[in-house]
Amino acid sequence: MKKLIAEFIGTFWLVLGGCGSAVLAAGFPGLGIGFVGVSLAFGLTVITMAYAIGHISGCHLNPAVSIGLWMGGRFEGKDVFPYIVAQVLGAIAGGLILYLIASGKPGFELGGFASNGYGENSPGGYGIISALVIEVAMTFIFLFVILGATHSKAPKGFAGLAIGLCLTLIHLISIPVTNTSVNPARSTSQALIAGGWAIDQLWLFWVAPIVGAILAGIVYKILSPEVTD
Amino acid sequence: MKKLIAEFIGTFWLVLGGCGSAVLAAGFPGLGIGFVGVSLAFGLTVITMAYAIGHISGCHLNPAVSIGLWMGGRFEGKDVFPYIVAQVLGAIAGGLILYLIASGKPGFELGGFASNGYGENSPGGYGIISALVIEVAMTFIFLFVILGATHSKAPKGFAGLAIGLCLTLIHLISIPVTNTSVNPARSTSQALIAGGWAIDQLWLFWVAPIVGAILAGIVYKILSPEVTD
Amino acid sequence: MKKLIAEFIGTFWLVLGGCGSAVLAAGFPGLGIGFVGVSLAFGLTVITMAYAIGHISGCHLNPAVSIGLWMGGRFEGKDVFPYIVAQVLGAIAGGLILYLIASGKPGFELGGFASNGYGENSPGGYGIISALVIEVAMTFIFLFVILGATHSKAPKGFAGLAIGLCLTLIHLISIPVTNTSVNPARSTSQALIAGGWAIDQLWLFWVAPIVGAILAGIVYKILSPEVTD
Amino acid sequence: MKKLIAEFIGTFWLVLGGCGSAVLAAGFPGLGIGFVGVSLAFGLTVITMAYAIGHISGCHLNPAVSIGLWMGGRFEGKDVFPYIVAQVLGAIAGGLILYLIASGKPGFELGGFASNGYGENSPGGYGIISALVIEVAMTFIFLFVILGATHSKAPKGFAGLAIGLCLTLIHLISIPVTNTSVNPARSTSQALIAGGWAIDQLWLFWVAPIVGAILAGIVYKILSPEVTD
Repeated sequence: MKKLIAEFIGTFWLVLGGCGSAVLAAGFPGLGIGFVGVSLAFGLTVITMAYAIGHISGCHLNPAVSIGLWMGGRFEGKDVFPYIVAQVLGAIAGGLILYLIASGKPGFELGGFASNGYGENSPGGYGIISALVIEVAMTFIFLFVILGATHSKAPKGFAGLAIGLCLTLIHLISIPVTNTSVNPARSTSQALIAGGWAIDQLWLFWVAPIVGAILAGIVYKILSPEVTD
Repeated sequence: MKKLIAEFIGTFWLVLGGCGSAVLAAGFPGLGIGFVGVSLAFGLTVITMAYAIGHISGCHLNPAVSIGLWMGGRFEGKDVFPYIVAQVLGAIAGGLILYLIASGKPGFELGGFASNGYGENSPGGYGIISALVIEVAMTFIFLFVILGATHSKAPKGFAGLAIGLCLTLIHLISIPVTNTSVNPARSTSQALIAGGWAIDQLWLFWVAPIVGAILAGIVYKILSPEVTD
Repeated sequence: MKKLIAEFIGTFWLVLGGCGSAVLAAGFPGLGIGFVGVSLAFGLTVITMAYAIGHISGCHLNPAVSIGLWMGGRFEGKDVFPYIVAQVLGAIAGGLILYLIASGKPGFELGGFASNGYGENSPGGYGIISALVIEVAMTFIFLFVILGATHSKAPKGFAGLAIGLCLTLIHLISIPVTNTSVNPARSTSQALIAGGWAIDQLWLFWVAPIVGAILAGIVYKILSPEVTD
Repeated sequence: MKKLIAEFIGTFWLVLGGCGSAVLAAGFPGLGIGFVGVSLAFGLTVITMAYAIGHISGCHLNPAVSIGLWMGGRFEGKDVFPYIVAQVLGAIAGGLILYLIASGKPGFELGGFASNGYGENSPGGYGIISALVIEVAMTFIFLFVILGATHSKAPKGFAGLAIGLCLTLIHLISIPVTNTSVNPARSTSQALIAGGWAIDQLWLFWVAPIVGAILAGIVYKILSPEVTD
């Protein structure tokens, strides 16, 4: 139960921090943080929580991560579903608090909030093929790095930094294409608030990250196997 | 006494470095550091001091941190008040040196200095509810990360990085809302120099951070208890 | 064979992540990541892979690195050629996936992709002498840092951070001059897709990095010798 | 002798990397790295060299650092002068290579190169008092952090990160005031190339950093004494 509360708080923070920086600060006139700042923010949510709750729950914060770790033989199958529920609920809570804060500005408009999308809802107008390819590829590498950095042969203590910085890197590349998901819980939290097209396109941000994560679990296990710890 | 001098110097640096980057460099024409640079600067004041004075005083630099650590069972109640006095005095000293430097530019205007505010004094015009919610939430997570990263089960040596990067992240999200406090000493130092509305609104930047810190102390202690060290 | 697959995936990531951030996100209107974001992205590809595959293949991701480590007495001569082949193939694969994603935007124009160049193909119009000097100097220091940070007397575990941040730094300095190579595999992957002048000028981005790497191998071995491990 | 060669190469890199990022990349139209990028670059020169040559020479790269460490009882007085000579020569070499590269651009104008200055030569027009105060204060804290992060009670291995990030922070604050020195060798290398006012004002960038360093050496030794190692 403590693990699930930790995952709830951690994913709450990932959404409040990552999507919050996008909604509140990215486009501030003249001084805004832009995509560089949003990329840093998402990565730092993971770094900070890795050191805060890593020893409690492992700090997954993402259904694709829990599934990928399970496929890679590092996480028990029976824990996958409860973790995903806690992550999605935490993400929704983070989205609601963010909505409460953001709507306190005169003239606030919801728009797509920080939803993920493709086609005309892609920040740069990229089509569905680009969206599928980049979400699969980014989540593949994300899990590949997670499985490697938490491997028993990797240097101790650095996994939180490497994994968080990987999420920063993923955002530096892919915000223009899909607004970057690689995390179905994060996408769900925004789509539920934004509604409309964000709900219609949500399927891709469950399917592609999970496919990428499963592939990474299989590949890394072959490349550098390890007994479950 | 050495602990109090260390807290004084550390909080001096937090204000001179963090508020200094905002006042001197954020809006420099064409090349300015913007909110990304200010966010980095605040975080780096904590990272640098964590490794410089962590072994002397624990490097709190913030009344809300001292109170949150006390509530979480990691800091002696009798030391809370002296720490807060040293922090507020150090912050004021940092603010005065910054004023001395900043006023050496022809045409310098004080304005609100780097004060925290809400309503029409919020950088983005956010109301009092947004300000209260975000300051409580940000300080809650800040203390949650501090309590986690300094826990005996967390990797050794990384706490300074995780905590400093958490302060960077907090600024990436919340500068547009309140100019980001989460630290009553930092807010006080600027309000005393700016005067006027900054003094009138200062109460919120004592109350909200302390409420967030107390909540985090209680929650983290339940989630992952530890004996005082 | 596992080492070669790891090098293939790692160099795939270096190109998809580094060149991808440049092609997809650097110039996004108003919110783009600019050269700072591209510099971070290249460095983070190395940091993330260092912790993911460092224990498998050593994480070279770059023919100049493999050659420099060999000259410095840290890598077996018989492994140099297979590593280079894997790196070039991985880089090409990364370039192709990037092309697939980038071309999914209406109105996409290939231009020089993220190719390296000098003279009129230098981002800032720098001539061939500037290009040669900066590529030799940057790769010299890159290998110098790699040889130092992986030395048995250097602190354990930090090499991935130091080396990746060195690549970030190299980009912060030299993108305006040559678009920054220091890596023949990265340059080859872009030139093959862009064609034309990028192919004509490719020789420099094999010769200069390798010269810099060889010099560093020789100098560091004299300054701080070590037995091969 | 190996120590002096290491200091020469390290200070060469500090100037080529730090001043190079300012001269070549800070103001690149639309995509330039600005003061944030220059601040990162200076800090990363120290981080990269700390892990590359820290075990050879201690990686001072700065006359004020050598003097401050001596005052703090961590460095032998007889080694101070040779270190300073190696640092100044390395800085000059870095400046010359940078000049060679930068002048390879059609229409290159030297201007003040990356010199430090005050009054009308301060980037933001700050007067001599602001310049003196900020250079003393920044170097005081720089040495305070160096002495703390390398203290035997500080976590092992992190000193290079903390010290390099401190130099980044110092630049985030003070570039608008003096173009940031805190390092007489760096200032000298640019003044010799730029000539004129840069030579006339060079004295301040020897005096102020050394005063700040001496103060820090004295204060830290009292606060947290340690036997010379």
